[in-house]
Amino acid sequence: MRPSGRKPDQMRAVSFERNFSKHAEGSCLVKFGDTHVLCTASLEERVPPWLRNAGRGWVTAEYGMLPRATGERMRREAASGKQGGRTVEIQRLIGRSLRAVVNLEALGERQISIDCDVIQADGGTRTASITGAWVALHDCLKWMEARSMVKTDRVLKDHVAAVSCGILASQPVIDLDYLEDSAADTDANFVMTASGGIVEIQGTAEKDPFSQDEFQTLMSLARAGIDELVGLQKAAIGA
Amino acid sequence: MRPSGRKPDQMRAVSFERNFSKHAEGSCLVKFGDTHVLCTASLEERVPPWLRNAGRGWVTAEYGMLPRATGERMRREAASGKQGGRTVEIQRLIGRSLRAVVNLEALGERQISIDCDVIQADGGTRTASITGAWVALHDCLKWMEARSMVKTDRVLKDHVAAVSCGILASQPVIDLDYLEDSAADTDANFVMTASGGIVEIQGTAEKDPFSQDEFQTLMSLARAGIDELVGLQKAAIGA
Amino acid sequence: MRPSGRKPDQMRAVSFERNFSKHAEGSCLVKFGDTHVLCTASLEERVPPWLRNAGRGWVTAEYGMLPRATGERMRREAASGKQGGRTVEIQRLIGRSLRAVVNLEALGERQISIDCDVIQADGGTRTASITGAWVALHDCLKWMEARSMVKTDRVLKDHVAAVSCGILASQPVIDLDYLEDSAADTDANFVMTASGGIVEIQGTAEKDPFSQDEFQTLMSLARAGIDELVGLQKAAIGA
Amino acid sequence: MRPSGRKPDQMRAVSFERNFSKHAEGSCLVKFGDTHVLCTASLEERVPPWLRNAGRGWVTAEYGMLPRATGERMRREAASGKQGGRTVEIQRLIGRSLRAVVNLEALGERQISIDCDVIQADGGTRTASITGAWVALHDCLKWMEARSMVKTDRVLKDHVAAVSCGILASQPVIDLDYLEDSAADTDANFVMTASGGIVEIQGTAEKDPFSQDEFQTLMSLARAGIDELVGLQKAAIGA
Amino acid sequence: MRPSGRKPDQMRAVSFERNFSKHAEGSCLVKFGDTHVLCTASLEERVPPWLRNAGRGWVTAEYGMLPRATGERMRREAASGKQGGRTVEIQRLIGRSLRAVVNLEALGERQISIDCDVIQADGGTRTASITGAWVALHDCLKWMEARSMVKTDRVLKDHVAAVSCGILASQPVIDLDYLEDSAADTDANFVMTASGGIVEIQGTAEKDPFSQDEFQTLMSLARAGIDELVGLQKAAIGA
Amino acid sequence: MRPSGRKPDQMRAVSFERNFSKHAEGSCLVKFGDTHVLCTASLEERVPPWLRNAGRGWVTAEYGMLPRATGERMRREAASGKQGGRTVEIQRLIGRSLRAVVNLEALGERQISIDCDVIQADGGTRTASITGAWVALHDCLKWMEARSMVKTDRVLKDHVAAVSCGILASQPVIDLDYLEDSAADTDANFVMTASGGIVEIQGTAEKDPFSQDEFQTLMSLARAGIDELVGLQKAAIGA
Repeated sequence: MRPSGRKPDQMRAVSFERNFSKHAEGSCLVKFGDTHVLCTASLEERVPPWLRNAGRGWVTAEYGMLPRATGERMRREAASGKQGGRTVEIQRLIGRSLRAVVNLEALGERQISIDCDVIQADGGTRTASITGAWVALHDCLKWMEARSMVKTDRVLKDHVAAVSCGILASQPVIDLDYLEDSAADTDANFVMTASGGIVEIQGTAEKDPFSQDEFQTLMSLARAGIDELVGLQKAAIGA
Repeated sequence: MRPSGRKPDQMRAVSFERNFSKHAEGSCLVKFGDTHVLCTASLEERVPPWLRNAGRGWVTAEYGMLPRATGERMRREAASGKQGGRTVEIQRLIGRSLRAVVNLEALGERQISIDCDVIQADGGTRTASITGAWVALHDCLKWMEARSMVKTDRVLKDHVAAVSCGILASQPVIDLDYLEDSAADTDANFVMTASGGIVEIQGTAEKDPFSQDEFQTLMSLARAGIDELVGLQKAAIGA
Repeated sequence: MRPSGRKPDQMRAVSFERNFSKHAEGSCLVKFGDTHVLCTASLEERVPPWLRNAGRGWVTAEYGMLPRATGERMRREAASGKQGGRTVEIQRLIGRSLRAVVNLEALGERQISIDCDVIQADGGTRTASITGAWVALHDCLKWMEARSMVKTDRVLKDHVAAVSCGILASQPVIDLDYLEDSAADTDANFVMTASGGIVEIQGTAEKDPFSQDEFQTLMSLARAGIDELVGLQKAAIGA
Repeated sequence: MRPSGRKPDQMRAVSFERNFSKHAEGSCLVKFGDTHVLCTASLEERVPPWLRNAGRGWVTAEYGMLPRATGERMRREAASGKQGGRTVEIQRLIGRSLRAVVNLEALGERQISIDCDVIQADGGTRTASITGAWVALHDCLKWMEARSMVKTDRVLKDHVAAVSCGILASQPVIDLDYLEDSAADTDANFVMTASGGIVEIQGTAEKDPFSQDEFQTLMSLARAGIDELVGLQKAAIGA
Repeated sequence: MRPSGRKPDQMRAVSFERNFSKHAEGSCLVKFGDTHVLCTASLEERVPPWLRNAGRGWVTAEYGMLPRATGERMRREAASGKQGGRTVEIQRLIGRSLRAVVNLEALGERQISIDCDVIQADGGTRTASITGAWVALHDCLKWMEARSMVKTDRVLKDHVAAVSCGILASQPVIDLDYLEDSAADTDANFVMTASGGIVEIQGTAEKDPFSQDEFQTLMSLARAGIDELVGLQKAAIGA
Repeated sequence: MRPSGRKPDQMRAVSFERNFSKHAEGSCLVKFGDTHVLCTASLEERVPPWLRNAGRGWVTAEYGMLPRATGERMRREAASGKQGGRTVEIQRLIGRSLRAVVNLEALGERQISIDCDVIQADGGTRTASITGAWVALHDCLKWMEARSMVKTDRVLKDHVAAVSCGILASQPVIDLDYLEDSAADTDANFVMTASGGIVEIQGTAEKDPFSQDEFQTLMSLARAGIDELVGLQKAAIGA
């Protein structure tokens, strides 16, 4: 039995609250159970210096946690003067994941900055971030389409969503919450598209190495979970 | 007429959503119209180094804005590697304001860290922060009281709330939103207690200096507004 | 009785030594008793990036303390790698105060940088800084006028000076030195013009809140002190 | 055909030069073709603060590149004042990979710091780092064993090595050099043990997503490559 | 002819104003012509961590320039977030120079921190700093002697002073001001004691290398100048 | 007797391994005994901002040590977020030394960046760096000459090399290794050209001051050592 009482292949309640932010071109408060992340997409009519005059745009991401999003208050990164290694890793992952489904040429010479800020954390903040960020990105593109700047369908090639899987007391389970994550031997994050493509796989064994078979099982669990998440994204955007 | 359509002495709709955060000992999402600030109070069983063995506790505050809380995305302070001058000013103000109504000896050798994070900004983020932080602080003390650590009434000496006033087209008005604030000649923030005491006054004339009479009028407006805010705080905590 | 032996409404000996610096376009060593601040005004033929081609100039300020300006040596901010919150607050205040009496359009697309460096501290460094900085700014404009760059009278709209007031053992007093400041309940800084306008008010009660009447008394004390300071500024510049 | 002229499953020439450094307890210059990394293992008789009195040790890693290890000179991280995101990601990966094969209890309350410094880069610096770091770590433990501090076999549970695989013009290939890496669609790094366990998998598709089948092929390629690398490690240490 | 009109072996007017600072245990405003440096010596009853329980003390130094000490305003180091290379070099030189004449065992487990802050610069700020710092250090030791903490004569083994020499239009000259320094081919700083010992020599040829003979001439010039400076130090302290 | 067993005027075995780096335009692994420094010269077709359109180029240098180049592991400067004072001093020295033999006009508007990275340290890293950097610089210019960008002879005016001398148990000795350096009273570094010019002299007495005669002896030792080093440079480049 999982501490959460969920079945091995059962994800937490997932919801998307679109237009959460008054100012952003696209925004979404995504909830994976008690993990709540505010994702905003901000359009900027400029690209990074190294991309100037290259005829294409860019999608980038930043990630942060409110200091008391967690069980114990963490030091505010702005106060400590730098982003921690975990933060940097996660925001690079979010950026890569979204770019994998974006046609940067069709976006034009513009940048969309995704901010994923964890309001409350209970495990799986990076997977919730990616999944919610896709909705914010979609809505930002719709905002642009309404102003005849782009065609959403040409820019956004596919859905992308993410979920974590792990081995908990020898049992492969999906979408681990904080308690489960702390107890798991293996932690793997999968980022996949609606059409079945794999965008990113990160599997880590801090304790004991895992086998190829175990990894295979986790990937199958993830595949089913991603399909469910994509279904929820579609429902959220009314597709 | 104000851009917002409000009367000169009319504040925006103010609300407090207590227990917004699952983890914090006290928390409150405060809204002053479209300005939304998440205030959490975190108890730590230690004091800053300079206060060790002094027989009293400490209340401190940090302030931050999500990058897209504003009309244009601002650079994330954690990414730029330092907190800006405005952030530092505001968080010091919040800390001083709360300490003015706290009996630090009665708190004991503990620190309560207040985090005020602006989810959405539309002017008056510092006054909303102080007003909401008082509720979070109150709830943190109640949490402690439930564990026989303190008596809330002995630690918390009074309510504290804050409101901004300004002169807009020669008309003194209260609780300016972003548009009004941008157009105002004078901007003054008042932090006051329920019992009529002044905790902090900050009046600034970036354009033309103002007169003592004008300042007097702003202070009277503020006094009435603070009374209203204190009433709402009382209703929120069920006092 | 005040520790300093002064009467409640008696300021310390105030002096201005103009042209203290060989290099700066304007400079002044201001003394409020044992508080000594070197104020320099540096002309630069460029404006901050956000003001380019806006047809007006800018006045900005920076503040610093020599490490042993105080009773105990403080860590050098250049060595610790950042300016502290207090420093940032004060330099923003100095800049705002001066800009309130400057016609930025008449200045033209130039920046005047004010540096206020505390050589020796004994309370009231920010008020001495503002009062002395006005003299340095005046002399910088005269330097420019001698080169037909501006008319001083068109750029400098008024005098600005600053003084602190506080409540010491229930007695309102003016221009607190370090000992008095440490013992005071309330500390308020007033920045005002010769013509009676208020530029900035900062009143703080770290201990007990103060009343509107007390604040009124402090403001009256300040008004008289500012008049005296403006008189001394006039004498110093030979007006 | 690969730009390097190698067969799809052919790794570059790999060599280990042990005792490269006079000072370090363990050291190894590892070469994967033109990628040269100096790995040192430094023993310290202390653990990180959060591990004090926990009865076990720690293995950590840092990674760096000489500024001109690459085709174009990169900015020195010490001069820019921070380690980049890529550096942070890689050094965390190296640390996790080594800890997966270390019995931290058997190590005792000591820390071994691994430094992987890239002298010359031609793709695959992180996989070369892990593979070489294992040799440096092994030699550090042997150094300790010679001083009766530990038993190497009790601390070091297994070999660990790493290799990258990718899809190049639809062809899965192993151990990509810089040119191949720049042209590849998919890049996956595999960290595995001699006994067949998976320690870490990182698969990334910056361009087009990849399929589960493709990933399966890459993993098989990696498995064979790791076996080869482990064989070379054994030869190097004379096992 | 020198731009300054001085003879080749003629130093600028040098003066020491002792007790310039109210707070510091020792202080001195030293002037080498238009170069003015405030030197303070601050006693601290602690030593750096690496010297704890070693039975001796430490003398360290920090150096800074006010932003407008120079002809053009320089960026404030506290604002730019780091001390520049030149600053670091100079403060290390000052510290080494003073330690060469201090008996650290006789000082006891205490630290004296020397701060040299350039109020106005016109060349030779590092040599003026060292020469003035010696006076401040002397007075700090006298302050300690008055409190029976040390014997000045046992701690301070000798005088130390410094002067620059250079080759200006083929002519060796002493104590270069800014204009001369900018035009000189070679710049050498000499730190020497009253008893004829050399503490530090730094000779630099940014343009053309200089010969051993030229260097010999500069050293002789310096020797005479140091004797003069030591005489002025003695007069200043009333020895 | 020296700890190393060398005669007073005997240098360590010195060697230059050219073309050590595949990527750099010029590179050299220089060894002074157990001190090993990798020197690379990187050509960049741009100059620093303050040199734009000045019709000449620039040569600059950076210096670093691998964390375990030394007997005890040092903290990585990139991790601590700043370069230490010693690093800054040394890299400025290397840059000045090379510029003294370079005709910057003949170089054209380009920058050559020298990186000196200490792979293994045993005293004299700065002198080895300068001596090896000259070879890397020479080879970079040859690379440019092969592309008709410059004439090496017109840009490179002379050889430059460096050596340390010190007084060890009253005996002047050359090229001190770490053990000797730790025991020496005086440490002097000499940077000289093949034609007998002095580029930089740095003599330091942390313990007791030294005499002019002693310094003279050190300079003579250095002169002979530099001649030997220049001979080895010539042999290395096949001149």
